[in-house]
Amino acid sequence: MNGAQSLIRTLVDAGVDVCFANPGTSEMHFVAALDTVPEMRGVLTLFEGVATGAADGYARIAGRPAAALLHLGPGLGNGLANLHNARRARTPVVTVVGDHATYHKKYDAPLESDIDSVAGTLGWVRRSVSPAEVGADAAFAVAASQEPPGGVATLILPADISWTDGGTAVKPVPPRSPQQVPETTVKAIAEALRTGEPAALLIGGSATHEPALRAVSRIAAATGAKPFAEVFPARIVRGAGVPNVERLGYLAEHASHQLTGIKHVIVAGMKPPVSFFAYPGKPSDLVPEGARVHTLAEPGQDVVEALEALADEVAPDTAPILQEAQRPELPSGPLTVQNWVEVIGALLPENAIIADEAQTSGVLLPAATAGAPRHDVLTLTGGAIGQGLPVAVGAAIAAPDRPVIALEADGSALYTISALWTMARENLDITTVVLNNRAYGILRVELQRVGAEGSGPKANDLLDLSRPDLDFVKIAEGMGVPASRATTAEELAEQLSRALAEPGPHLIDAIVPPLV
Amino acid sequence: MNGAQSLIRTLVDAGVDVCFANPGTSEMHFVAALDTVPEMRGVLTLFEGVATGAADGYARIAGRPAAALLHLGPGLGNGLANLHNARRARTPVVTVVGDHATYHKKYDAPLESDIDSVAGTLGWVRRSVSPAEVGADAAFAVAASQEPPGGVATLILPADISWTDGGTAVKPVPPRSPQQVPETTVKAIAEALRTGEPAALLIGGSATHEPALRAVSRIAAATGAKPFAEVFPARIVRGAGVPNVERLGYLAEHASHQLTGIKHVIVAGMKPPVSFFAYPGKPSDLVPEGARVHTLAEPGQDVVEALEALADEVAPDTAPILQEAQRPELPSGPLTVQNWVEVIGALLPENAIIADEAQTSGVLLPAATAGAPRHDVLTLTGGAIGQGLPVAVGAAIAAPDRPVIALEADGSALYTISALWTMARENLDITTVVLNNRAYGILRVELQRVGAEGSGPKANDLLDLSRPDLDFVKIAEGMGVPASRATTAEELAEQLSRALAEPGPHLIDAIVPPLV
Repeated sequence: MNGAQSLIRTLVDAGVDVCFANPGTSEMHFVAALDTVPEMRGVLTLFEGVATGAADGYARIAGRPAAALLHLGPGLGNGLANLHNARRARTPVVTVVGDHATYHKKYDAPLESDIDSVAGTLGWVRRSVSPAEVGADAAFAVAASQEPPGGVATLILPADISWTDGGTAVKPVPPRSPQQVPETTVKAIAEALRTGEPAALLIGGSATHEPALRAVSRIAAATGAKPFAEVFPARIVRGAGVPNVERLGYLAEHASHQLTGIKHVIVAGMKPPVSFFAYPGKPSDLVPEGARVHTLAEPGQDVVEALEALADEVAPDTAPILQEAQRPELPSGPLTVQNWVEVIGALLPENAIIADEAQTSGVLLPAATAGAPRHDVLTLTGGAIGQGLPVAVGAAIAAPDRPVIALEADGSALYTISALWTMARENLDITTVVLNNRAYGILRVELQRVGAEGSGPKANDLLDLSRPDLDFVKIAEGMGVPASRATTAEELAEQLSRALAEPGPHLIDAIVPPLV
Repeated sequence: MNGAQSLIRTLVDAGVDVCFANPGTSEMHFVAALDTVPEMRGVLTLFEGVATGAADGYARIAGRPAAALLHLGPGLGNGLANLHNARRARTPVVTVVGDHATYHKKYDAPLESDIDSVAGTLGWVRRSVSPAEVGADAAFAVAASQEPPGGVATLILPADISWTDGGTAVKPVPPRSPQQVPETTVKAIAEALRTGEPAALLIGGSATHEPALRAVSRIAAATGAKPFAEVFPARIVRGAGVPNVERLGYLAEHASHQLTGIKHVIVAGMKPPVSFFAYPGKPSDLVPEGARVHTLAEPGQDVVEALEALADEVAPDTAPILQEAQRPELPSGPLTVQNWVEVIGALLPENAIIADEAQTSGVLLPAATAGAPRHDVLTLTGGAIGQGLPVAVGAAIAAPDRPVIALEADGSALYTISALWTMARENLDITTVVLNNRAYGILRVELQRVGAEGSGPKANDLLDLSRPDLDFVKIAEGMGVPASRATTAEELAEQLSRALAEPGPHLIDAIVPPLV
């Protein structure tokens, strides 16, 4: 058994049996070893950002890591933006970066670069130094990725360590359990809630899944505390039969408004809220002046148990308030920022997964889908655009029986557009709706907000995606995904119904007006 | 004048008047400032790897740096692979990476990451700390990028430094001249050449441009030394009227064959040759056993002057041997690895620039174009694929009057495919020929060469780009570039002639068989 074979066997034994790959020469022994471990599924992507984003999406749904196989420093670079998003999502991801053979590095061959420093910005890194140790390195990498609350673990695998005999498969290293929250913390926060002063309960991490959402709803119902989910949850469960928790606004003005008058900010599974960006003359810290921050559970602590304990403390006899089933009427007329989300709300199938990178076009989505059948929403956790299509790929591979809907802004789509090809090759049941407003809409908003002086035609040109217009029907067809264009709500509804009824990937190029 | 305005004014005064940009919120003041400095041209790209590759291509042709504007750590990550190629090309590139406002960083907002560590892997890095100093920082960044032999300089620009008043434009810092090669070095190498023992003269950097090529040819003609250019030159001048210097082979076996029997390896503007990758049981160092290595000029030394001095020493009365004009006949029949390059050789226009990322499909290109009209070839210097289309964008902006031809492998094209959109928006005179063999052809070769054991259908699947076939006609049209498909030599010739005759971008999807 060579190093590569022991690596793959160890990964599979630890439950990592999908590898999103974009390999090169230094990874050829890893690639060859795939045929010796039948349980490992290799999924080819045509760009590393698709591989890393897919690994993120996979783990958000599967609850366990996938591997991403990358080619040296440039491959890691191409995968870095979506690894950043995975780090912010606290998703377990095991990245395997091939490197030159140990004895070859000193020659500074053209592909030589400092992989370790780049990988070090993401979290846990190990460089394998002998084939005998690769198995253990892999087992530790899987455990490191699952260390609560979860993160990116990178294993750097030199080519000769991969191809040399002497590897052994190693048993999984059990990941640590999340740290328990002390009872005194729960009781102190219960006391703050009992003051009756205005309180907000801000939740992140696994607190946006059930059963934590039920505990949150009980606490809110009994104490009047306002619950909010973090701005960009890795996965939030929504829809009929689930407590409906509003998300904090992306715009600092919006979030400040949501928190107006709050005296107690209780955070559970997230850090205290901050502005996404800084703006001249505006605060970065979104905790209202004079409010006290109480940490119920830090990321990595057992937030579910803590919320349940708090609910039992302050709301022993209160039931959660569950969202009623209700859908918008199917709208008509030319597409608008309002009516396209109503189409989604009206037609969302049972048990769907939404990968949401609709950006400014999606501001009205949460309201329109609140009472749709129960579904998961995966969002842009780290702000690095180009995440939606890859995350959809990973989610569809993790849950082949669930319909996946990728809601994708035009500008964001272009970063990792070759994800469409992987959807076609793997015949994934993903319906992509591109919200094509022919602009970096968010930057038009931001250019106003930052109070930039002197901007004129040159500035606006850099935020404009027309001249030429992008034709996502042709782009999708060029990558093997059937596609159509919708300019009215009726067309979108008809095309979406058809796409959802057929297996395999589809794309709808929805021409929408910009938000501003 | 705010920091951003002083930055742009200083860049322009230092000769940096093109900025390839993919901005975000933290760069909005830079974007706004573009309208206050009319000389700076902003070019929008839809992915950072296009911006950085274009900056590389621009400088290879213009001989002076462009700027690339990137959005925080994820933007730098997306641009990293082509910055790696620029570093290996020793191209001067000024990268401006926007960052959060200084006071915002402590909040660890979602887009916060360690930009400094990632940028540090590329070379010179400075983080601006006050608006008053941004101008000086920019002037030093330009000078650092031009420090012989040239490289990537990164300026990290926090948003508040950008938006705060107090900036001043700073005069250019003159870059240092390349270090002179001592006369004793030239004389010692002349002596080695006079022994009459077999010698090879390996050239890189500006030694692959004229007038150095003429000196190389004189030395070779007078002494019998065999000249070879580095495997992947940043820019090599070729064609009728120019000395024809063969490149070292990418495959170590090929390069070893080229150097068989050599006793003196003279390197000028490059380091001694090494294998691109390591292979089990094969040497990394390509200097033949027993041969002596002589360094005429290290990268950064004045290699042109050194070669001319060496030529005057050993070949005072010898004229260079210039390539005669000769073109292949226009071929016919279904496209093959042989006949498509003959079409290029037969039709290459005067003064063209070839961005060559044809990979395995292009192995016969140098022979077919040797006697074509004089042209420049820009190659994949750092081995990070996805470089050809962006480099073509930059070259076309640097030389609007020259026809640019991008020869692009199908797999490589997908990494930075949105470069096509920028070609359309800027109406660049670029003809892209995609060599569509529906495979990662190089990896099929490499899988054999590395002696990977046990590879079977799963491994081969990861090297295969069919199922579905990529349709580059549709992809190009979707991005606004007129496109056609060629399956025969006659079709390729007809379509190439038409594309070259019309201004603006075109793409030809050339269906070729794989090399193996």
